[in-house]
Amino acid sequence: MKRKIRMGMVGGGKGAFIGAVHRMAAALDGQIELVCGAFSSSPEKSKLSGQEFFLAPARVYANYEELISKEKNLPAGERMDFVSIVTPNHVHYGPAKMALDNGFHVICDKPLCFDMQEAYDLDKTVKETGLLFALTHNYTGYPMVKQARAMIKNGDIGTIRKVVVEYPQGWLSTKLEDSDQKQATWRTDPKRSGIAGSMGDIGTHAENLAEYITGLQITELCADLTAFVEGRQLDDDGNVLLRFDNGAKGVLHASQICAGEENDLNIRVYGTKAGLEWHQMEPNTLVVKWLDKSKEILRTGVGNLYPEVQAHARVPAGHPEGYLEAFANIYRNFAFCLQARLDGREPEAIYNDFPTVWDGVRGMNFIQKVVASSNSKEKWVKV
Amino acid sequence: MKRKIRMGMVGGGKGAFIGAVHRMAAALDGQIELVCGAFSSSPEKSKLSGQEFFLAPARVYANYEELISKEKNLPAGERMDFVSIVTPNHVHYGPAKMALDNGFHVICDKPLCFDMQEAYDLDKTVKETGLLFALTHNYTGYPMVKQARAMIKNGDIGTIRKVVVEYPQGWLSTKLEDSDQKQATWRTDPKRSGIAGSMGDIGTHAENLAEYITGLQITELCADLTAFVEGRQLDDDGNVLLRFDNGAKGVLHASQICAGEENDLNIRVYGTKAGLEWHQMEPNTLVVKWLDKSKEILRTGVGNLYPEVQAHARVPAGHPEGYLEAFANIYRNFAFCLQARLDGREPEAIYNDFPTVWDGVRGMNFIQKVVASSNSKEKWVKV
Amino acid sequence: MKRKIRMGMVGGGKGAFIGAVHRMAAALDGQIELVCGAFSSSPEKSKLSGQEFFLAPARVYANYEELISKEKNLPAGERMDFVSIVTPNHVHYGPAKMALDNGFHVICDKPLCFDMQEAYDLDKTVKETGLLFALTHNYTGYPMVKQARAMIKNGDIGTIRKVVVEYPQGWLSTKLEDSDQKQATWRTDPKRSGIAGSMGDIGTHAENLAEYITGLQITELCADLTAFVEGRQLDDDGNVLLRFDNGAKGVLHASQICAGEENDLNIRVYGTKAGLEWHQMEPNTLVVKWLDKSKEILRTGVGNLYPEVQAHARVPAGHPEGYLEAFANIYRNFAFCLQARLDGREPEAIYNDFPTVWDGVRGMNFIQKVVASSNSKEKWVKV
Amino acid sequence: MKRKIRMGMVGGGKGAFIGAVHRMAAALDGQIELVCGAFSSSPEKSKLSGQEFFLAPARVYANYEELISKEKNLPAGERMDFVSIVTPNHVHYGPAKMALDNGFHVICDKPLCFDMQEAYDLDKTVKETGLLFALTHNYTGYPMVKQARAMIKNGDIGTIRKVVVEYPQGWLSTKLEDSDQKQATWRTDPKRSGIAGSMGDIGTHAENLAEYITGLQITELCADLTAFVEGRQLDDDGNVLLRFDNGAKGVLHASQICAGEENDLNIRVYGTKAGLEWHQMEPNTLVVKWLDKSKEILRTGVGNLYPEVQAHARVPAGHPEGYLEAFANIYRNFAFCLQARLDGREPEAIYNDFPTVWDGVRGMNFIQKVVASSNSKEKWVKV
Repeated sequence: MKRKIRMGMVGGGKGAFIGAVHRMAAALDGQIELVCGAFSSSPEKSKLSGQEFFLAPARVYANYEELISKEKNLPAGERMDFVSIVTPNHVHYGPAKMALDNGFHVICDKPLCFDMQEAYDLDKTVKETGLLFALTHNYTGYPMVKQARAMIKNGDIGTIRKVVVEYPQGWLSTKLEDSDQKQATWRTDPKRSGIAGSMGDIGTHAENLAEYITGLQITELCADLTAFVEGRQLDDDGNVLLRFDNGAKGVLHASQICAGEENDLNIRVYGTKAGLEWHQMEPNTLVVKWLDKSKEILRTGVGNLYPEVQAHARVPAGHPEGYLEAFANIYRNFAFCLQARLDGREPEAIYNDFPTVWDGVRGMNFIQKVVASSNSKEKWVKV
Repeated sequence: MKRKIRMGMVGGGKGAFIGAVHRMAAALDGQIELVCGAFSSSPEKSKLSGQEFFLAPARVYANYEELISKEKNLPAGERMDFVSIVTPNHVHYGPAKMALDNGFHVICDKPLCFDMQEAYDLDKTVKETGLLFALTHNYTGYPMVKQARAMIKNGDIGTIRKVVVEYPQGWLSTKLEDSDQKQATWRTDPKRSGIAGSMGDIGTHAENLAEYITGLQITELCADLTAFVEGRQLDDDGNVLLRFDNGAKGVLHASQICAGEENDLNIRVYGTKAGLEWHQMEPNTLVVKWLDKSKEILRTGVGNLYPEVQAHARVPAGHPEGYLEAFANIYRNFAFCLQARLDGREPEAIYNDFPTVWDGVRGMNFIQKVVASSNSKEKWVKV
Repeated sequence: MKRKIRMGMVGGGKGAFIGAVHRMAAALDGQIELVCGAFSSSPEKSKLSGQEFFLAPARVYANYEELISKEKNLPAGERMDFVSIVTPNHVHYGPAKMALDNGFHVICDKPLCFDMQEAYDLDKTVKETGLLFALTHNYTGYPMVKQARAMIKNGDIGTIRKVVVEYPQGWLSTKLEDSDQKQATWRTDPKRSGIAGSMGDIGTHAENLAEYITGLQITELCADLTAFVEGRQLDDDGNVLLRFDNGAKGVLHASQICAGEENDLNIRVYGTKAGLEWHQMEPNTLVVKWLDKSKEILRTGVGNLYPEVQAHARVPAGHPEGYLEAFANIYRNFAFCLQARLDGREPEAIYNDFPTVWDGVRGMNFIQKVVASSNSKEKWVKV
Repeated sequence: MKRKIRMGMVGGGKGAFIGAVHRMAAALDGQIELVCGAFSSSPEKSKLSGQEFFLAPARVYANYEELISKEKNLPAGERMDFVSIVTPNHVHYGPAKMALDNGFHVICDKPLCFDMQEAYDLDKTVKETGLLFALTHNYTGYPMVKQARAMIKNGDIGTIRKVVVEYPQGWLSTKLEDSDQKQATWRTDPKRSGIAGSMGDIGTHAENLAEYITGLQITELCADLTAFVEGRQLDDDGNVLLRFDNGAKGVLHASQICAGEENDLNIRVYGTKAGLEWHQMEPNTLVVKWLDKSKEILRTGVGNLYPEVQAHARVPAGHPEGYLEAFANIYRNFAFCLQARLDGREPEAIYNDFPTVWDGVRGMNFIQKVVASSNSKEKWVKV
């Protein structure tokens, strides 16, 4: 008999933002059950979290080392299949590496890790172990993002000339890290976040989205990063000129000091035949701007879209799906692929679509290059 | 130790639209687990569905009678707590009545049932048994609908004068019921749907939303219903003038032949101080139109909203939540209230908020009156 | 040598709203010059207005009788060609009738006049004299309104089933007429406005727009009018069910107590193939909602539109044209037709498009019927 | 007796785009009359244009030299007051310089001229003659642009940190200059346009808008210009990083190869307290995004705006004003200031607001610097 995929979790104790998101994303489609976790650096907090998630006390662990080693010793029919890592950046590498080394598949929050050395090592480990590794660049999970990618792949908008990708937020407009707001505290701390602030936190989402949708790779960039809030150690704003491998040009800007902006990741791609525009905050809409005819508003569930779109939607047109559903698409695709592996089947191509450790390596590299560029007097830095 | 609430399901076998919605809504917040079901009138299909949902074969039943009687015989620590009914309208009353009579709480899809007699009987049974009964008028589950309701309750927009509520869809613009599209077939069939088509299917959502948000009751109406598609037996379009108990006037129109419309339930309420506007297809936005100052765009997660709003949201501003999350709010609130009952506690007021059997009775009455009005030469029909 | 068309004006002294609009509309395209006027019931104010408009003092008159009789006595090469009437409703008939009787063409603000008797008499006089008569139902002057009309005429959206036309405003939400706000004062006064308030002022615009765009005629209606503001004598809100001559159904609602609404005349028309949506406040956009394919956003100046569109636009796509330009289209078309008549030519068909006295008669009839219906217990009133 | 201001025109014969715009802008408010012109380099075309504009044949000239010299010889009560120059860039300096030298005021289309030398000389001449000189950076004429400027000046959004200004168009996505489309031909020709294509044509509008609204000055920039269309000699796309004199950072991008874009000049300015957003294609709306409260939608005519706003609007809220009205604001303000000078009065401060020769010098400098930066390997070029 088929069974649900079993998930363990590192981090994400009660009250954490992204941990709860991962749990809902995992639960939505009924393919995955949470069976164990090490939810906090405080064993007491971890225990309380486990109770809240209705877990057996024996499977709530004090730390990730215990989680991995003890789960490994459970019978195959019981132990977790994969671990979901939802800790701050500096605690990605440790559990990911150990999980892989012990035969567990991994889903990891982005950015991949703390520095390039960790990134390359994780990439190598994934290749060597042959295990599944998903990175939650969740915005690529939206149906209309997949429509955009499919349209470009199929040449519907011609050769790409220009890409504008933006990620404005406003929540760090003041020195929020001086309060006890956890999200702000670690994200602005170079010891936990790495060498970049907004560029690591959201700039990498923008970079990943642009490359995912266009199928192009950034080859050169020119960046101007700023820490606008006095006393902040990492960038809270960045403007970047881009050049792509096919000769296209572009602009990427990401910011956490754009007062009043919520979470407006958006992208415009212009080809020789048409332009595309997508906004994360209105995710079921993809605008197609044709050169010589009326604009079209593509909508999840309406008309002839590429098969990718409906394969990643759950309800009919006009019933809005959002952030959690897009996030859940990564979990569901991962679960489908893992199920196929458990069954000894090839995964279905349409579901074999989630960001991998390689997206993570590219993201880490983007962070390095954008910081280097900002510190340089040279105009262009090669990526 | 606390445990998840246990759900059984009637209807909603694999491939059904609304059954899948209910399952995702139940799963999202990790409070409920599906433990059993009678998923189809075909026992074979029911069995296959049970497999797909990873259920124990012993708890996949051939029909609702078997489900209820066999679950009743299971030990208290194992049997389902409530049944979720997701069948067509003519199969609501049977399982709901039997479940209540056997001590099971109920969540039922809308409209409540087939006719007024069934409606009154269910209402009576709920009162007599004292069990929980939720009706999935899911659109009231949206955070910004709750903000609108709270603003009106608190007098923020003054005395209400005018209400415009619309529910245009276009999917029945052609005679889709002649194909094998299941959704179209039963909804246009008076034997399964009842005396109304679009008015029962979506008109009641509009009516319920208007009364939920405004706190007013419709007292008189004047309706003009039409079956535009040749050969269709039930209305596919209706326009209704409304009068409310405080003297406010209004318009309700609902249609399934508005070519090109997806699922655009929307409402505007005008008071003496301001107007409110909300659209289901952009659900995290509530527009407030002040008499003498600039329009405000209220957004889930931004600024000072009523506590109801964030209690029904899961992620920060700008991370869109949609249809499934609003639907899940009904399940989660129901689960929280049921958990409180299991614990012998009073439910928390903020979560004791979901449509009840009484909303169902009002909805059934609305259907009767709107059909009667459409057939009458009198201008006003009392509700 | 060709010359500009010469305009006289009745009403519209400095400070009046609609008089200034008519003057700008007349001036925009350089086809018309203002040469004379009787701008106010106060001769002194009229004189001051004439100075402000740079007119020769001799051609600024004390009242419309003097204007018409003295202009008539001027040499043909000097006297005005037509008179523009921009007074309150009860002073439309007098100058219009006298102008026509004395051989002057007329442009008149809407609604046509004060009651049906005046309306029929003006219609008769226009027919008898053969003179040009334009009524400024200015919203029909928008390019995308003409696109909508042309699409429907050409069958692009199939047979029309449903029409929703709305005209919400909020400026009369309080008893503004108790201040010295001139616009409010006469519009709420039955002696100057006629038997209807909001229905005459803006409801007729909605009715005219619906009939203009669809080419259909309203045959039956059912109305519920209200004066919400205490002490107000005329309706400030109205909801109307509509039936059209082809079997289509509809809703018209117009209001001046929709708090926070500016001037949001809008219309949706649904046919068997597609729906159309147009909003006066975003006038260069026409949304086409197809039954089976993606929505299209038609825009003035973009792609293959009907020739009517660009003939009524002045600048390229993306350079927004608005209210004054649409208003000017009526003046320009009137001027082109009058120029053709002066030249002894037939007017060009594409410009022979402006609302006539017959639109005015229909509008006056709509007002009568909507008031009668509101006072009746019968459901339907024939139009 | 007061009289209208008298305008002569250089360029803008029938069929030209921008000449017609200038004429409508001049006519709208009834303050200016067109009395003469040299409308084309072909005397025959100039003559035909004059007829179409109802001018006396004697005042239609063969070229600008004749226009200026002959008008100068007319009696003061008859000759033009100012000349409006609407020719391609390389024919701005000649007529502007000669007009000023002969005592005529000037309105000139943008960019100011062909190169820096001409720019400095015009600036010097204006200073020496003391005559009025307006440059039609028309987008600064919009009421809500003035609201944005006033808000920033008054500190409503705090200290500015980030500016994003965009000007995407798509009309040069193909090699339109190979057809006989006049607008494309001269704009892509370095002999007539100068050293920049899109940056001169629309990039300068973006630069001017950013500096006008913020009151800041660009001090450094880093540009990447491209001619995407094969064989095109001048840039048709450009991305620019900006640094402002107060430490703010920004991005400017302008393009004429953004397929499907109409004319979407737009700007976002983020301060420490709030962000502002304005789009030329929806010009009567200004979005204010507050740090800690709901977004506000400011609209021309609604609520408490700065006095600048209504002084530059003509009709009530919800009656959309657009491109021509904003353009007309420059003409009207110029006319009011010129009228004041004729009357020997100081102009009213609120109307003494139009772009001057100095905006033109800054624009020409921007063009030089952006081209220089694009050709440089240095990251930053000082402005």
